[in-house]
Amino acid sequence: MSIIGRRGIHFLRKLSAENVPSDLIEKGQSRLIDASLTLIRESAKLRGELVRALGGSVASTSLLGVPLGHNSSFLQGPAFAPPRIREAIWCGSTNSTTEEGKELRDPRVLTDVGDIPIQEIRDCGVEDDRLMNVISESVKLVMEQDPLRPLVLGGDHSISYPVVRAVSEKLGGPVDILHLDAHPDIYDAFEGNVYSHASSFARIMEGGYARRLLQVGIRSINIEGREQGKRFGVEQYEMRTFSRDRHFLENLVSLSLSLSLLLLSVSLPPSVPAPCVSFFLYVCMYF
Amino acid sequence: MSIIGRRGIHFLRKLSAENVPSDLIEKGQSRLIDASLTLIRESAKLRGELVRALGGSVASTSLLGVPLGHNSSFLQGPAFAPPRIREAIWCGSTNSTTEEGKELRDPRVLTDVGDIPIQEIRDCGVEDDRLMNVISESVKLVMEQDPLRPLVLGGDHSISYPVVRAVSEKLGGPVDILHLDAHPDIYDAFEGNVYSHASSFARIMEGGYARRLLQVGIRSINIEGREQGKRFGVEQYEMRTFSRDRHFLENLVSLSLSLSLLLLSVSLPPSVPAPCVSFFLYVCMYF
Amino acid sequence: MSIIGRRGIHFLRKLSAENVPSDLIEKGQSRLIDASLTLIRESAKLRGELVRALGGSVASTSLLGVPLGHNSSFLQGPAFAPPRIREAIWCGSTNSTTEEGKELRDPRVLTDVGDIPIQEIRDCGVEDDRLMNVISESVKLVMEQDPLRPLVLGGDHSISYPVVRAVSEKLGGPVDILHLDAHPDIYDAFEGNVYSHASSFARIMEGGYARRLLQVGIRSINIEGREQGKRFGVEQYEMRTFSRDRHFLENLVSLSLSLSLLLLSVSLPPSVPAPCVSFFLYVCMYF
Amino acid sequence: MSIIGRRGIHFLRKLSAENVPSDLIEKGQSRLIDASLTLIRESAKLRGELVRALGGSVASTSLLGVPLGHNSSFLQGPAFAPPRIREAIWCGSTNSTTEEGKELRDPRVLTDVGDIPIQEIRDCGVEDDRLMNVISESVKLVMEQDPLRPLVLGGDHSISYPVVRAVSEKLGGPVDILHLDAHPDIYDAFEGNVYSHASSFARIMEGGYARRLLQVGIRSINIEGREQGKRFGVEQYEMRTFSRDRHFLENLVSLSLSLSLLLLSVSLPPSVPAPCVSFFLYVCMYF
Amino acid sequence: MSIIGRRGIHFLRKLSAENVPSDLIEKGQSRLIDASLTLIRESAKLRGELVRALGGSVASTSLLGVPLGHNSSFLQGPAFAPPRIREAIWCGSTNSTTEEGKELRDPRVLTDVGDIPIQEIRDCGVEDDRLMNVISESVKLVMEQDPLRPLVLGGDHSISYPVVRAVSEKLGGPVDILHLDAHPDIYDAFEGNVYSHASSFARIMEGGYARRLLQVGIRSINIEGREQGKRFGVEQYEMRTFSRDRHFLENLVSLSLSLSLLLLSVSLPPSVPAPCVSFFLYVCMYF
Amino acid sequence: MSIIGRRGIHFLRKLSAENVPSDLIEKGQSRLIDASLTLIRESAKLRGELVRALGGSVASTSLLGVPLGHNSSFLQGPAFAPPRIREAIWCGSTNSTTEEGKELRDPRVLTDVGDIPIQEIRDCGVEDDRLMNVISESVKLVMEQDPLRPLVLGGDHSISYPVVRAVSEKLGGPVDILHLDAHPDIYDAFEGNVYSHASSFARIMEGGYARRLLQVGIRSINIEGREQGKRFGVEQYEMRTFSRDRHFLENLVSLSLSLSLLLLSVSLPPSVPAPCVSFFLYVCMYF
Repeated sequence: MSIIGRRGIHFLRKLSAENVPSDLIEKGQSRLIDASLTLIRESAKLRGELVRALGGSVASTSLLGVPLGHNSSFLQGPAFAPPRIREAIWCGSTNSTTEEGKELRDPRVLTDVGDIPIQEIRDCGVEDDRLMNVISESVKLVMEQDPLRPLVLGGDHSISYPVVRAVSEKLGGPVDILHLDAHPDIYDAFEGNVYSHASSFARIMEGGYARRLLQVGIRSINIEGREQGKRFGVEQYEMRTFSRDRHFLENLVSLSLSLSLLLLSVSLPPSVPAPCVSFFLYVCMYF
Repeated sequence: MSIIGRRGIHFLRKLSAENVPSDLIEKGQSRLIDASLTLIRESAKLRGELVRALGGSVASTSLLGVPLGHNSSFLQGPAFAPPRIREAIWCGSTNSTTEEGKELRDPRVLTDVGDIPIQEIRDCGVEDDRLMNVISESVKLVMEQDPLRPLVLGGDHSISYPVVRAVSEKLGGPVDILHLDAHPDIYDAFEGNVYSHASSFARIMEGGYARRLLQVGIRSINIEGREQGKRFGVEQYEMRTFSRDRHFLENLVSLSLSLSLLLLSVSLPPSVPAPCVSFFLYVCMYF
Repeated sequence: MSIIGRRGIHFLRKLSAENVPSDLIEKGQSRLIDASLTLIRESAKLRGELVRALGGSVASTSLLGVPLGHNSSFLQGPAFAPPRIREAIWCGSTNSTTEEGKELRDPRVLTDVGDIPIQEIRDCGVEDDRLMNVISESVKLVMEQDPLRPLVLGGDHSISYPVVRAVSEKLGGPVDILHLDAHPDIYDAFEGNVYSHASSFARIMEGGYARRLLQVGIRSINIEGREQGKRFGVEQYEMRTFSRDRHFLENLVSLSLSLSLLLLSVSLPPSVPAPCVSFFLYVCMYF
Repeated sequence: MSIIGRRGIHFLRKLSAENVPSDLIEKGQSRLIDASLTLIRESAKLRGELVRALGGSVASTSLLGVPLGHNSSFLQGPAFAPPRIREAIWCGSTNSTTEEGKELRDPRVLTDVGDIPIQEIRDCGVEDDRLMNVISESVKLVMEQDPLRPLVLGGDHSISYPVVRAVSEKLGGPVDILHLDAHPDIYDAFEGNVYSHASSFARIMEGGYARRLLQVGIRSINIEGREQGKRFGVEQYEMRTFSRDRHFLENLVSLSLSLSLLLLSVSLPPSVPAPCVSFFLYVCMYF
Repeated sequence: MSIIGRRGIHFLRKLSAENVPSDLIEKGQSRLIDASLTLIRESAKLRGELVRALGGSVASTSLLGVPLGHNSSFLQGPAFAPPRIREAIWCGSTNSTTEEGKELRDPRVLTDVGDIPIQEIRDCGVEDDRLMNVISESVKLVMEQDPLRPLVLGGDHSISYPVVRAVSEKLGGPVDILHLDAHPDIYDAFEGNVYSHASSFARIMEGGYARRLLQVGIRSINIEGREQGKRFGVEQYEMRTFSRDRHFLENLVSLSLSLSLLLLSVSLPPSVPAPCVSFFLYVCMYF
Repeated sequence: MSIIGRRGIHFLRKLSAENVPSDLIEKGQSRLIDASLTLIRESAKLRGELVRALGGSVASTSLLGVPLGHNSSFLQGPAFAPPRIREAIWCGSTNSTTEEGKELRDPRVLTDVGDIPIQEIRDCGVEDDRLMNVISESVKLVMEQDPLRPLVLGGDHSISYPVVRAVSEKLGGPVDILHLDAHPDIYDAFEGNVYSHASSFARIMEGGYARRLLQVGIRSINIEGREQGKRFGVEQYEMRTFSRDRHFLENLVSLSLSLSLLLLSVSLPPSVPAPCVSFFLYVCMYF
């Protein structure tokens, strides 16, 4: 358990051992979770109303920050990442127009729902299973505000699980996933943690949230990674055979309309000890 | 207006010029502000209930983060400060016991209400007068949960104004303030901004929230600073005469029971361009 | 106006408002500008004499530093760049021989005229139109010392304008320019500044100093950039269509003898907030 | 010889060996030195005229930068120091008023003559004896513009010698010096270099430019340092006996009117490998 | 167990489970430990012979590096510290003469025995109890070469135990220790590790290696720290009462001849997460 | 001579001038060298015994660190490199499985013999010719423990010479070398140092340790580099003609079984002043 993570859970466990009525804690946690979801709901609703009032937008990318780092077995800086990513997006060294001419300052193109108050919830002693539910619910709240489409700013890779689950449940069935990463993140329970950033795809596959999972770019895989891949029917494409597989993959991506989710892990080469940030990119062109 | 600050306000102004019904925006802003205050209220309430259930605490310091930096005329890093300060508090290089033996992990000694969602509110186009009200209301919400006592983690120095206002209004009258800083922060409207980090004490004095203001450690003061000091009856003690004033000040601090607020500005020497973090320390021993 | 830039202009404006005879200031500024140009003239002349005395050189690249950063709307570090670039050139981690075997320590290959005293001139209250003239004159002074060919070390991109103007005027007509940059730098007056680093090519095209302008590598362009491009007949090649345009561009560069100027902007990817340095590379093989 | 320093001298020595007429080089060097001094003269003259026209100033501190680092036996960053020092002076984290209320933006209080083009001169092959003369002449040029008083921004400590020499010659006799430094800088010729930053006070004492030299704060002295101190009659006060000597020194500084020069070396503790910057502070209140 | 530490022990445990004869491993470990001690013995012997041949030295400080960091519960950089400390000692920014005129380059004043090959030994699967013996033996090997006196360069604070043990055993009885540190390092077994850097003084006191232990400068102590202090009769002087205790302590240190060991922990203030380096200073003037 | 290097040699030279019996020093040096080689021998022997006991390994890569930096004419950080390289290898950001599924924690795949105590030997006054012998002997000691194959962690590039010499002598004849580097490292005696990191291949070729030397990737070569290349019959492939030579080189590497050694220099582009680390990669597939 990490330095950052340790404190929140400590408090309430200790308290329940000291004859504080457990329902006092549970009710308080529930009220705090409700308030957090209300904040996300209202933030998303305002953006949705605005974009609909402006009209003419089929899909507006909507940023949703998840400042969570305690499920990383290595550096835990992603707990601080979302505000830093926004700072980079609006940095004065460039303008706000994309290469194709889209104006990012137009809310019909891009909106920002803000951050889920992850640390506030954890500090009340809320465990990871309920925390993952809060993330899933938040993603759904954004999806309910058509035409908003969530682009989730992580956060360590453990959040892939609740995000994919939310998308699958909201769309009504398993999705196809293109996962670009050097690691397969498919350990059963890395270092004993079922919610580890290295186990998120084991949870996704177990839950039946993916119909087809393509992992492309894998460099750092061991025996367990390969066995879990076989067990769940994952299509794993490694870097060492990339030149062989490239033609197949390029055609696949450009043709398949059934591809509904793209998971993008941005990190430095796997053997370099550096901060990494995970993005969940929700490709929304077809529904 | 800063890079970080620019975007939020931009959106809604632009929208109102494009025939989006203004009450749609206003209602959405109000709902978001309500949700934010509900989050703080529930977070404070849970801590208050816990500490009262545990019993035996006369006053429990309660952290409240205000991640706000856009009113700084210089570096705006304080918008990212509260999570970083918490990281330093719980750093593994030390234990959690104070020099006098207090155990910081005991919620009867220290609790943490979390951060006000400042950036989420600003991004909806909420202007600074309403934002300052949100800060004041949040401080009051913590004070209502006896025995919690707020220790506010800034945020640039502009937040001194709403915090002192809240304390004064909650206690029922003006307070005495010991302000330790190299700058008096008393410009009428620095660079035209009445909410500038360099103008917070002008707002405090105008509002009648301080009975007595002692500013100690001043190094960087100009004519306007001295004139505003005289206008408001501020007692300004500069570093260049500190050895002369020291005896008076030490007796003052150690004897006076009427001293109710301590504002502490931690920064590097004034001519060095470095990030600075402001703390508001709420000294609560006597009420 | 930048921190670095603010002070110089401040002084003399203030002074003229306080009944200092304006011709005292103007004469002093003129004498200082004359002295600055004399310094460049003598420095160039000594190098020219040397290279001619050594004989056998058709063209000797001659460094000319322009430590100017105040026309950048973002970071202003280029005001410190020329000495740092020289430090890197002569760094002990390599030898002074180019890949093709040229010995950079031989003045027939490379000389260095030094820096224009930009900050000294600005600090006297000299405005940007006269400052741009000083830069143009300095470039001409180097060109007059055959076989020296100026390689200008920036400085922010605003200096492209006076440098191209000098080359055009010295050669007797408009030149062809290959501009490699992620930005077109062709705003009419970025943030109201006609000498902005983002407006230099608008000035070049208005002045008729370029016959043909090819901008290659553009990533960060908006509506104004495209409209200004059309207005001036600029040939803009964007990165997103680079694979399509590559064949045309490679043939163009390798065949065209009319191509007389190469502008090279070295910077990090456009969305990354990092110091950037601009070079003006004067390709001199043909005249 | 340093990396930065190596190149300039290399060029012209090599050339003279290759049958370039030596008077061509010598005349060119002389013309460049003349142009450099003209630049300083005109810059100082303009400031002097302005301050005199404004009236009411008895002494205006006038910055003069000496970007020279090649005589340091360790780090040579001081060659880049003067622009960095100015950047720190005008940094936006503070205002421009001193603790005693002086307005630094008022030219009657502070002016800036700019930098001597040290690197341009060295790159022409000018040796250190002539370079030291250029520094001395530049200091005199500022002193000739009454009421300007030079405050020299180094540069490594080797420049103490030409600066003190200039002051002594201009005032008409040897001066008294209070030298605050951890090192005595009094080696006869450190690593064989008579102009070494560690030998500047040997040159000052040999030249008879100081009547009395008090060195205070010495920590890093060896046998040669002590012997040279005795030879020249230097009063050396070491840190290890500072508490014993303090009373004497405080009275000396506060009472003596004959003390005309203060040399201040700002550096980190002597065993720490860090960049250091030397200042020459010219205390001018009394003549 | 740390990243750095994990690997070494892993190997041999794994191997013994796979039917590698255990005496093969044990004999190999013993031979490697013998070779390591031979290296230290020969290195110390050569220095001892030299200093004795030169004559005239009563005590020569002799550096002995212990590159060990795995017993730190926080940062483990001390495993890399000894070469970095030596680099700082010989840094070119100062000379090699102490303030009192001792010449550090004279082996009669200072010698250097080099580093114990800690990582090589650990990588063979040697556990901490044997590793601590190697450190104790190495210290004794230096002490046997009169007039060498070991100055041990850590290494995390866990090495205080084997070093003090060696000194006590070599001198024939318990020693008096002045321990300057913000932490008492006296947990029974911090995080379950009896060799933790936070438990070294518990081991020292249990072993009877100290007659009197004065801990001065303590800031970060909790209930266990105070109770262990009482249990072992430690004299603990905290910073919060330092002004009261100062007079007593100053007299104690300057008068007592029985004080034989000084432990100096150099680190940043306790709440700051920064690398720290521990020194063991062996004061040897009296025996 | 470098800062780091200066001290060791200084001591003993000085001593021999002061009537210390020279055989005292020589015998002590010899004993220390013997002890160092014993340490490497035992460390290699233990790994060899283990791998042979485990069985089934044809070749086990065996790390051998050479912390040597004093023969670099630029930065000397490689003296600290081997522990840093190991830290990166075992960094927690990745697992220990290679892309092809090899488990690095299995000693049949990878072992680590530790570092040669280079600095300890140099500090005794041992000169570079004997030091180079120690490196050669250490490489041979690893090669004697079949199936260990040394992978040497530098260290500046000067160590290529003793490593190649050892391999050649152990295998019984000259080897073929593929040298990937931007520099040819073939100066006769760079800056007068025959053991310079820029002269290692001159020594290799003179000694007849290479049958065929292919240098690929050369960017920074001057006249001496080309002449030495011709003199020794080196096949030099430069980056500027790489696209022309690529086909030849790719076939060469993939087909030739006689290629026995691969020297890999990892560094930043040649004109960038950055730390560099040299590896010696011993390709062992064929013998």
